[in-house]
Amino acid sequence: MTQATAYRAAIVHCLADPARAGLDASYAHYEDGVLVVADGQISDIGPAEQVLARQPANIQVLHFENKLVTAGFIDTHIHFPQTEMIASYGEQLLDWLNNYTFPEEGRFADPLHAKRVASFFLDELLRNGTTTAMVFGTVHKASVEAFFTESDRRNMRMIAGKVMMDRHAPDYLLDTPESSYVDSKDLIARWHNKGRQLYAVTPRFAPTSTAEQLEVAGRLLQEHEDVYLQTHLSENTQEVAWVKALFPERAGYLDVYDHFGLLGPRSVFAHALHLEQAECERMAATDSVISFCPTSNLFLGSGLLDLPELERHQVRVGLGTDVGAGTSFSMLRTISEAYKIQQLQQHKLHPLKALYLATLGGARALSLDDKIGNLAMGKEADFVVLDLHATPLIQMRMKNTHNLFEQLFVLMMLGDDRVIAQTYIAGRRQYRRN
Amino acid sequence: MTQATAYRAAIVHCLADPARAGLDASYAHYEDGVLVVADGQISDIGPAEQVLARQPANIQVLHFENKLVTAGFIDTHIHFPQTEMIASYGEQLLDWLNNYTFPEEGRFADPLHAKRVASFFLDELLRNGTTTAMVFGTVHKASVEAFFTESDRRNMRMIAGKVMMDRHAPDYLLDTPESSYVDSKDLIARWHNKGRQLYAVTPRFAPTSTAEQLEVAGRLLQEHEDVYLQTHLSENTQEVAWVKALFPERAGYLDVYDHFGLLGPRSVFAHALHLEQAECERMAATDSVISFCPTSNLFLGSGLLDLPELERHQVRVGLGTDVGAGTSFSMLRTISEAYKIQQLQQHKLHPLKALYLATLGGARALSLDDKIGNLAMGKEADFVVLDLHATPLIQMRMKNTHNLFEQLFVLMMLGDDRVIAQTYIAGRRQYRRN
Repeated sequence: MTQATAYRAAIVHCLADPARAGLDASYAHYEDGVLVVADGQISDIGPAEQVLARQPANIQVLHFENKLVTAGFIDTHIHFPQTEMIASYGEQLLDWLNNYTFPEEGRFADPLHAKRVASFFLDELLRNGTTTAMVFGTVHKASVEAFFTESDRRNMRMIAGKVMMDRHAPDYLLDTPESSYVDSKDLIARWHNKGRQLYAVTPRFAPTSTAEQLEVAGRLLQEHEDVYLQTHLSENTQEVAWVKALFPERAGYLDVYDHFGLLGPRSVFAHALHLEQAECERMAATDSVISFCPTSNLFLGSGLLDLPELERHQVRVGLGTDVGAGTSFSMLRTISEAYKIQQLQQHKLHPLKALYLATLGGARALSLDDKIGNLAMGKEADFVVLDLHATPLIQMRMKNTHNLFEQLFVLMMLGDDRVIAQTYIAGRRQYRRN
Repeated sequence: MTQATAYRAAIVHCLADPARAGLDASYAHYEDGVLVVADGQISDIGPAEQVLARQPANIQVLHFENKLVTAGFIDTHIHFPQTEMIASYGEQLLDWLNNYTFPEEGRFADPLHAKRVASFFLDELLRNGTTTAMVFGTVHKASVEAFFTESDRRNMRMIAGKVMMDRHAPDYLLDTPESSYVDSKDLIARWHNKGRQLYAVTPRFAPTSTAEQLEVAGRLLQEHEDVYLQTHLSENTQEVAWVKALFPERAGYLDVYDHFGLLGPRSVFAHALHLEQAECERMAATDSVISFCPTSNLFLGSGLLDLPELERHQVRVGLGTDVGAGTSFSMLRTISEAYKIQQLQQHKLHPLKALYLATLGGARALSLDDKIGNLAMGKEADFVVLDLHATPLIQMRMKNTHNLFEQLFVLMMLGDDRVIAQTYIAGRRQYRRN
């Protein structure tokens, strides 16, 4: 066992979903807390005096002043190859894909390009306090190879997969059912459960895969019971109409995926803005997951997710940035726009619920809550040090807060990457703000 | 005449509304430009070689590398006393006023508090590149006195006014028709057209003024033909219903203001989200102005402004942050959310149109386009130096841009106060980023 380190600071982390457990039972907050990390895992947490009393007297203690320590953020939907095209002007989903996304993704045929972007992307996640993400590659096997190589180098717990896409895209981005099967299977063998890396079978979305390819996706899931599935669902009304036209024999968009066996507890569907009632129920019945991507949904004008409605159906929901349609790598910025989307629908998104969605809720959405998502003993020590004085405005505003919830809300509404003072991955500091 | 200074950089500024003049005729862009400032005014602008050829050989030339110079931003609606309550959780307009705003504004009975907040507020505007704003004080005369004192000290062109409010607020925030008349009149005498300061008659909104007080507001406008009027209009559907109940004898919300003579080319109405057709037409007929406040409209869940619809009616529109219901002092962040609000309605907000709204359009909205809003010769030299490498993400993304519009769009979507490298007020640098 390596030497343990104790981090002394204000600490908050989530214990349960506030919507189910109630606010009081859903978090722990230590104004003067200590987090102890050993061998990359959390070995103790609690009020400083209690924790230090049970640790060796000579334990190394690092103090963080005017900071708040919490679990690393979890981004349940993002495209690493779209990093360099974030903030592309003027289109809604389908035109945006054709005009910007596909040409950009074409560049990832070059493994050196893929490596360079993967490296920048992961550093940007760290800069924003995101320690785990569910990540799209491109159709190129090499893009995912590059991604996992860089992620493994940083020891980050990441889920990623090669895009499967055999129609309705430029030739240079198409695979085939056969090649996508072979490439995905090979990547699973090489990377799934290697270190902290995990694989997701990744058909882009129903319009860009033939029935044959969607069948292959289902087969890959059957052959590897603990791999994930990630795709898109009902983001845009034109897209929904298109899917219905492409698959007239199916009851609707979700039924296309359902038919090919793609639903289940490890299946994450980005967006799901325009679900019909029966689709909500089917999501719940199969324990499938929705990734809510606020900045993307607004940027592409896709629509407003009704979070309480999904909660009533007991559908698991995580937060996603969806870069490059999303406009920020920051989960704080993402929360800020999630709040606004709920306000437009006369719903309140409580800051503790928002923290839950960005941490433990994200871990539950990715079926990783036994490993990450909060700072419980035994979890992997992915955590962030939030700066309560990150900017002059935040520092001034903090003086006018009266409790933890107000502090969190200020960080969420006014915060960005500057709030992240440090990011730790499995107990090791991988980022420190200048 | 003081010595002239030349600033050499990429320069862009607006010449007209792109919606009227077309894109090409509505701006000037010099990739290698020079801006010359003398006596606080712009004395020359153009391509570097041409401008330098007609200036004295010994003129001081400051170079800005990887920067873009443009006119200072204009915020057409903001509340300085709400600075310390920005990001207050959970309410929509009317509850938000009662639970957060009124208690906070009560603190401005203390002139020292008012001075401290005004100072912080103005520095925050400078940090965000905002050089002119139309500003609410509180009901306390001293709040506006403190504001103008601090603004005058920085030589910023500001419009502000004392809130008039004689009902439906806590006693400690109420004035009377008589006292509001006397106080406003005195502030006009002391501050209107003193240096760069301008006064706005400021009834908070129809629900908090009696008919007697609104009549006083109209009288103040008649007695001082070049002062402004600022108030709120049709922000929230409950508010609209309340106004109709309070003034059943009027045809609608706007008609209340109209009846008391409060419409006109120097009258700025914040929000106006729920106007009826006839109200749009009346706004146009009286040449009244709307301040569009995207981050506030989303934060309070108030609604989505339809910008093209107002353009069809030829209503002048400026952008506002509406801090403290708005969530950012940054006009770039404000533009980003303006873009998203338009996307949700299937409208495109072009980056040049957005720049126009934040600069020359704002100046036109405030009838100040003879003095500020662009970098034309003779204008007051309020300008900002935007950093094309402000963050690692922006710097990386800039490499993937192909023209000015893409550059602007990246700054608008990914930018915040860090993009502002320097802010100049009447030719003098008042802010430089660390």
